[in-house]
Amino acid sequence: MLVKKGIAVSPGVAIYKAVVLDNEDRPVPRRTIPVALIDHHIRRVDSALEESIKQITEVHQQTTETLGEELAKIFSFHLGMLADPALTDQFRAMVRKERVTAEYAVYSVMTTYAQTFLAHENSYFRDRVGDIYDLKRRVLRQLITSGTNDLSKVDAPSIVIAQDLTPSQTAALDKSKIMGLATDVGGRTSHTAILAHALGIPAIVGLEDLTQRVESGDTVIIDGHRGVIIVEPDAGQLLEYKQEVRRIKKLDAELGKLRDLPAVTKDGTEISLLGNIEFPTEVPDALEKGAVGIGLYRTEFLYLSAEHEPTEEQQYDSYVETIRNLGGKPLTIRTLDLGADKIPESAELAAPMLNERNPFLGLRSIRLCLQNLPMFRTQLRAILRASAEGPVKIMFPLISSVMELRQAKMILQDVKEDLDDQDIPFAENIPVGMMIEVPSAALQAKTFSKEVDFFSIGTNDLIQYTVAVDRANERIANLYSAGHPAVIQLLKDVIRAADRSDTDVSLCGEMAGQPEFIMLLLGLGLRSFSMTPPAIPEVKRLIRSVSLDQCRRVARKAVGFDSDREVLNYLRDEVNKVMPKAFDGRSIGF
Amino acid sequence: MLVKKGIAVSPGVAIYKAVVLDNEDRPVPRRTIPVALIDHHIRRVDSALEESIKQITEVHQQTTETLGEELAKIFSFHLGMLADPALTDQFRAMVRKERVTAEYAVYSVMTTYAQTFLAHENSYFRDRVGDIYDLKRRVLRQLITSGTNDLSKVDAPSIVIAQDLTPSQTAALDKSKIMGLATDVGGRTSHTAILAHALGIPAIVGLEDLTQRVESGDTVIIDGHRGVIIVEPDAGQLLEYKQEVRRIKKLDAELGKLRDLPAVTKDGTEISLLGNIEFPTEVPDALEKGAVGIGLYRTEFLYLSAEHEPTEEQQYDSYVETIRNLGGKPLTIRTLDLGADKIPESAELAAPMLNERNPFLGLRSIRLCLQNLPMFRTQLRAILRASAEGPVKIMFPLISSVMELRQAKMILQDVKEDLDDQDIPFAENIPVGMMIEVPSAALQAKTFSKEVDFFSIGTNDLIQYTVAVDRANERIANLYSAGHPAVIQLLKDVIRAADRSDTDVSLCGEMAGQPEFIMLLLGLGLRSFSMTPPAIPEVKRLIRSVSLDQCRRVARKAVGFDSDREVLNYLRDEVNKVMPKAFDGRSIGF
Repeated sequence: MLVKKGIAVSPGVAIYKAVVLDNEDRPVPRRTIPVALIDHHIRRVDSALEESIKQITEVHQQTTETLGEELAKIFSFHLGMLADPALTDQFRAMVRKERVTAEYAVYSVMTTYAQTFLAHENSYFRDRVGDIYDLKRRVLRQLITSGTNDLSKVDAPSIVIAQDLTPSQTAALDKSKIMGLATDVGGRTSHTAILAHALGIPAIVGLEDLTQRVESGDTVIIDGHRGVIIVEPDAGQLLEYKQEVRRIKKLDAELGKLRDLPAVTKDGTEISLLGNIEFPTEVPDALEKGAVGIGLYRTEFLYLSAEHEPTEEQQYDSYVETIRNLGGKPLTIRTLDLGADKIPESAELAAPMLNERNPFLGLRSIRLCLQNLPMFRTQLRAILRASAEGPVKIMFPLISSVMELRQAKMILQDVKEDLDDQDIPFAENIPVGMMIEVPSAALQAKTFSKEVDFFSIGTNDLIQYTVAVDRANERIANLYSAGHPAVIQLLKDVIRAADRSDTDVSLCGEMAGQPEFIMLLLGLGLRSFSMTPPAIPEVKRLIRSVSLDQCRRVARKAVGFDSDREVLNYLRDEVNKVMPKAFDGRSIGF
Repeated sequence: MLVKKGIAVSPGVAIYKAVVLDNEDRPVPRRTIPVALIDHHIRRVDSALEESIKQITEVHQQTTETLGEELAKIFSFHLGMLADPALTDQFRAMVRKERVTAEYAVYSVMTTYAQTFLAHENSYFRDRVGDIYDLKRRVLRQLITSGTNDLSKVDAPSIVIAQDLTPSQTAALDKSKIMGLATDVGGRTSHTAILAHALGIPAIVGLEDLTQRVESGDTVIIDGHRGVIIVEPDAGQLLEYKQEVRRIKKLDAELGKLRDLPAVTKDGTEISLLGNIEFPTEVPDALEKGAVGIGLYRTEFLYLSAEHEPTEEQQYDSYVETIRNLGGKPLTIRTLDLGADKIPESAELAAPMLNERNPFLGLRSIRLCLQNLPMFRTQLRAILRASAEGPVKIMFPLISSVMELRQAKMILQDVKEDLDDQDIPFAENIPVGMMIEVPSAALQAKTFSKEVDFFSIGTNDLIQYTVAVDRANERIANLYSAGHPAVIQLLKDVIRAADRSDTDVSLCGEMAGQPEFIMLLLGLGLRSFSMTPPAIPEVKRLIRSVSLDQCRRVARKAVGFDSDREVLNYLRDEVNKVMPKAFDGRSIGF
């Protein structure tokens, strides 16, 4: 049994078998075996070596034929090593003496060997390290159960454990089979966290060396409330958590009943609860959870796994699909927010975003669009054309200066004129808005309010820049806090500037779905929240339990604290007063 | 002749021969040669090959003796390649047919060869690419004039041209020989820029492929005002720039006369002008330029080039040397600001700072110190002990939350108690301050003013986080602007919060040394500026030419603009009204 604590990023509890995603350089965990299995593992070593030698011999043969003997010589080094008993006997000796698995023996001996090479004073030996690792991988590939690297092959409900998940990996997941996510790295708003929220499954990140300490097939309890993962739990823990799962299911059923009730405060103010989505197919689930529209439609997905730049038609089709799925409910489309943690898989598309020392402070999002106008104009055309099919708003991300916004608006105007010239229909008065997610934009909210129809506050980036903390860096995860007094100050200023100028303002960061911040945000004057759909029922329940007066009192007090800890403790207490049951035993997602 | 425009980061004009710093992977520029030299270059190819084969044969020999034949076999691939006329004849043919240098022929043929390997479907060939590059480097090493990679060997006044300069490289420069710096990468406040300012020499960064288009020995004009570099200028340009150099020398002589005059406004308010330094030995020059003390003493230098962590004694010694050099003038020591762009050379010291996706938003500066308390306590002990020798203040960098500051102060208190217990003398009431360089700290300035004796505003980082732009990323350099209205808003708020609470406030970012911002900052209420010493005379001259009323009027107007462009144009106009001569023909360092 092993208990590890990480950063809880999506609530819920699940108990399933683990699927550990392999990674070529993933360290193999040390596992001891019963004496009776020693011979079995030695036979596994032998056949893995035999198969590897066979493969290399074939490659050697082919190379000689196609490229000549001189070049094929490089394989003799590989063959020489595998045929050398001085090396291979070490595998067998280790299995026998230390009673470890064949995998671990190969991994351990080869790693030590590579280290010897790496420490060698002659650079030619250091350069050979790549060969050793190649060999290690080749032999291990014969030993490790195949398929665990291929997410599309996960065929039973499982808890997926990985070093990290990339956006394109998550796109390949069969979402009906994934019951929980746990990763070694990551922070509170990493892609893993966002995905888990969207799926409504528990997730924990920042678990450090978890992938080295769990094997595919192990039973795992993931507790997304407390941020705890238990590998191979004992009977008592299993019982306790099975009861917890039942309790949560009951709670979810209760929240489900709220779907058709309005999100209205006790004193009768209606609040707009919208969904954040990534794919057109997420719309039905968002509506099912009670969303009255989509406040943030991320449009990167077509780029992340494509070979080439998506065409105008491909983009248009997916926007229209989303609009049709919404059946007349409003949709806010955010223009491309590529770069930083959203790098396309295709080398062609990724090229301009690579090799940045600080990608979060680099050429990303609207900056990338303004440096690649053909791409930007294609997307704008697709959005405008789709706007003829239903109520659409357009939103520019990462605006940091007035000049940047004006440039984006000018290009939009230009595309509109092109469409006019071609008699292609679109919504002439399509509302234009911007994300407030860079501190400079928040500080200039008054100026910006004269230039756009609406604001959407993106707290994930806003927090990151305001406190200078990479939200995915687990080494400093404790410094990233939505309760930071400076962040609350900025939110207050932005909402007030929007209020005074009659500019619509919504909030679409993770904060919008975290119950502990709802009273504060209502008290600051926010009337529209866009969040991951599974969070809607709980937020709605809370809204229906409070009055605006009460919220204003909470906000006035909350802005007076010096530290995020005081803010968070206070907000948690206030929410618990209103809805003691809902948060029972839950760690609130700080 | 070649004219290239980059980002001007340090003013001045210089005309010298270029020294291009080689880099193993630096592309060799294509240079055509006269027909008469073809045979000479073919002979150079031959002798480079001969020497390379000799070297590899020796290594092969040694390896066989020490490590056995099997391992030595890996060199047969290298020898086989160099002995293969199919390859080496290409070098000779290229020199002859295309009339290029031996260097270029070897570089070009080997690069093509490597690309063929890289594109090969079999990963074993792809992995051989490292060997090809090894060989390429080895052969080129015989051809390229030695010494250009070794900065300590630059023996005549030169303009140094490099892809980039690391802090440890710059530490090795013989500063009396470096008359200008130009780099392919970098932004307005990169290390190159800071170094150039400290040396008072012209510098241009972000020149993209400059290193590929200039050779050591070429005559180069560097114009640090306009951000222009001219390689192999024509006679007219040479004449024009020689006159410019004389004009600037005359101007500098005039500024020199200001040294002993106070920095006092026309209406009699004395302004404190301090120096930013990195080494104890920079103190005499700072005083010579007119600094009344050191407002920012960076303490990373002992770490950047050390093998192991510097001892308390080493740190103490360098602090005491600085204090002695100052002869009673005040000194503000900033605690370690390691990480991000300041990574030690030693693998041991660098380890905790590596592999961050966004190092500027990562584990750096005070965060690193608070996660490595033994290191932090050692430095605090050294600073406290040195405080017995002269007027010292201590300053914590990158504070982003009140909790962080309190933790740092608590540790300082603890170290003080230890010293007390050991009867070691130190300044009991040493003033404690913090950098304001994270937006959250600026926004909470009022709260922080109750917790420290002084603020020092670090505009380089503050701008970077406020507008979310990596200051060293040339792709988005246009977005990094000290004139951004949001930045000015933050400066205004911080200075006011300090004023109201009687907290001392200084500004130590690059902005403090840029004349165009001086009137604005004086108008906002700033009375202390700490800057790179060469900037002091010009700033002093400006201060002596203005009244505070005038500055307040400028500030009131400047805070009303929407865009940095308007702000900068206005400030430049105002400064030109006061000191038309000084800025004549200079690009103001925006």
